[in-house]
Amino acid sequence: MRPSELTAAAAATEIREGRLSSEALVGDCLDTIARVDGAVRAFAWVDPEQALEAARRRDAEPARGPLHGVPVAIKDMIDTADLPTQHNSPIYAGHRPARDAACVRTLRALGAVILGKTDTHEFAAAGRLPATRNPHDLACTAGGSSSGSAAAVAAYMVPLALGTQTGGSTIRPAAFCGIAGMKPTWAEVSFEGAKGFSPSLDTLGWMARSVADLGLLALALGVGRGSWVARTTVAGMNLAVCRTPMWAELEPDAASHFDQSVARLAAAGARVVDLELPGEFADLNAWHDVVMQGEGRASFRDLYLAHPELLHEEFKAKVENHLGIEPLQLARARDIIASLRPVFDRLAGPFDAVLTPSAPGQAPRDLTTTGMATFSRSWTALHVPCITLPAGRGDRGLPLGLQLVGPRFADLSLLGAAAAIETVLSGPAG
Amino acid sequence: MRPSELTAAAAATEIREGRLSSEALVGDCLDTIARVDGAVRAFAWVDPEQALEAARRRDAEPARGPLHGVPVAIKDMIDTADLPTQHNSPIYAGHRPARDAACVRTLRALGAVILGKTDTHEFAAAGRLPATRNPHDLACTAGGSSSGSAAAVAAYMVPLALGTQTGGSTIRPAAFCGIAGMKPTWAEVSFEGAKGFSPSLDTLGWMARSVADLGLLALALGVGRGSWVARTTVAGMNLAVCRTPMWAELEPDAASHFDQSVARLAAAGARVVDLELPGEFADLNAWHDVVMQGEGRASFRDLYLAHPELLHEEFKAKVENHLGIEPLQLARARDIIASLRPVFDRLAGPFDAVLTPSAPGQAPRDLTTTGMATFSRSWTALHVPCITLPAGRGDRGLPLGLQLVGPRFADLSLLGAAAAIETVLSGPAG
Repeated sequence: MRPSELTAAAAATEIREGRLSSEALVGDCLDTIARVDGAVRAFAWVDPEQALEAARRRDAEPARGPLHGVPVAIKDMIDTADLPTQHNSPIYAGHRPARDAACVRTLRALGAVILGKTDTHEFAAAGRLPATRNPHDLACTAGGSSSGSAAAVAAYMVPLALGTQTGGSTIRPAAFCGIAGMKPTWAEVSFEGAKGFSPSLDTLGWMARSVADLGLLALALGVGRGSWVARTTVAGMNLAVCRTPMWAELEPDAASHFDQSVARLAAAGARVVDLELPGEFADLNAWHDVVMQGEGRASFRDLYLAHPELLHEEFKAKVENHLGIEPLQLARARDIIASLRPVFDRLAGPFDAVLTPSAPGQAPRDLTTTGMATFSRSWTALHVPCITLPAGRGDRGLPLGLQLVGPRFADLSLLGAAAAIETVLSGPAG
Repeated sequence: MRPSELTAAAAATEIREGRLSSEALVGDCLDTIARVDGAVRAFAWVDPEQALEAARRRDAEPARGPLHGVPVAIKDMIDTADLPTQHNSPIYAGHRPARDAACVRTLRALGAVILGKTDTHEFAAAGRLPATRNPHDLACTAGGSSSGSAAAVAAYMVPLALGTQTGGSTIRPAAFCGIAGMKPTWAEVSFEGAKGFSPSLDTLGWMARSVADLGLLALALGVGRGSWVARTTVAGMNLAVCRTPMWAELEPDAASHFDQSVARLAAAGARVVDLELPGEFADLNAWHDVVMQGEGRASFRDLYLAHPELLHEEFKAKVENHLGIEPLQLARARDIIASLRPVFDRLAGPFDAVLTPSAPGQAPRDLTTTGMATFSRSWTALHVPCITLPAGRGDRGLPLGLQLVGPRFADLSLLGAAAAIETVLSGPAG
């Protein structure tokens, strides 16, 4: 196995025990990037010599923390002091922040090597599309807006990558690219130094190739109040299946795979029941959109005033409020969503995980879209932790995801359940 | 009248009509700073030559917008690309951001001249105190955490200044320094590039010496969906007096002045009724504290890991959660506060303004504290717009404030009411 094919947890162990150097690992990731990223286009910026130099510094010092020597890629709307942060916007062409974002500073303090910046939708919101393609089929989108982060991890260019989620920008690209992704409880991780879109919703997220690696990053980034323990079996686990009010938007092939995944978990001994959301959840996706678009007005107004000629028309529409969102409508949307958060917590509380689709189906065979956030919007609005796991392939041979959701602050127990569910889903189909 | 004594609105008019240059105005503000700031210590950084150069550039070009040529001071936890941003923290000593915060970019796009950076509590949150003293009595605090912004405006060093509010950090210092201050509805103005403390609460605020100037900045910063109209009389206005569950913490002298202010408004023709908050509001200040401290854990964790030796112990206590705030307690606090927001909107909706104290009294004669946010916490938690106006002087000769509060998104109508109320309060006492 090449070093770049190791999970982050395995690589960290190899480095800690002296069997692998960070330089060798980073070097192998850079080799993979050189080999495949011309086609995949996950990275917006890589400085190989700088990454190798950082790896050599890690190799020359005592371990700083659990990520010592492990490379991480950063979505290019998150500030990095030693690499440009360009937001896929000409306004930020060549921009070099003076400081790291809080999450990047945390990763470096714990020994991580920042490998490069990954492509994104313009400001992770709208406008210019990422150039990234799906490593499983270059004619397909990798999802968005954390497109490059998902594709880079899926194509073994890096074991870990940071993204963000305001609608479905972490869970969807991870699912489309056949990897694991996590969006933690809102505000558990500082968003400082990432480009804001909607402060009620913006959440840092991350991708990896295993649940163990998601958990490694979760603890590194300060999620929860302790450790987490990987469950070893789904036998006896209480799982709920939530088909959501959006079920009709799930592609038939994805629906049948979803049911198969649920059946496999039941066959492995999980107790599975249906969880129907009360009627008041029916319009939650729509309320999410009111909040996201309504708050986007303030988030992009400075760029609209300072650089109107360099900002995509879609941002002008947000700032000029082309959707006509009234303040009272925004207040109402926030209030309704807030009132549903404790309701969902109570509904989800009895379960080890709530199972729901990660995306409407496989990645669209279309590079002019990054797909739809249909199956993520409500969970983002509810502030709850979400994990997507690879769950087989659809009729076009592309990955499908299964999403696990829990009540707010259940991030670590959800990771524990995800570890056992991952074992079932990655095993041979029954 | 010296140029530095003009309100921002008057100065902008003088500049627009060619009777005053930005250079002369900025020069006079710099003269005032040179004269008084050795004692007041409002500014953390001023670069006179750079400010004058910016003013000359404004004088040499067509008007960019409503703030053309007008100097504004910026709280030193808000990023400025051409001046250090030091957060009153040794971690950020000499730090020069590569980009302006969104609010600063907006002000520059509209023609403002950034005059300098004003002193603050460490990261506008805790730890190191600002060096700023109250211009009305140098032995007294100027309030906090936007200490320097309030003192600079009060001492005629600058007509406008930006601050922030997570507890009471804009309203209290403005009241202590005898000027006008405004905290708009949460998320109406982008907080990007200001140091985050509690994302549910953090709000940009500003200070000025008149309601007209507060309104000038409000429109410049994109508050509301149109313009605002200064009301000319309080006659016929519907005002509510809210003594809040914290009334016992108001100093007796401040309480009697509050009643006098209310009586003056009634005598001028306003209809005044009492607004008693329902019992569920009794613990709102405590819930606010749970959210603020609970969310502070994530906001300072990166600095705690990367620079433990340079971070004040009070931040370590937040990150290590010395208060023992449990996740479910944080969720409950957020949920209760969220449930009270629409309740307060309905209660306040029928009134032109809700009148309430701005602070527990005059500025403490004590430079080891910046006073208490007692009379601001609940309004910040409720996300509602707040304006403080000078309302006479207390028994130690120091300023007192009267706070006006409205339902969410009523910022512009609250400004309109504030203009008429200001006229009554600034007139001769009856």
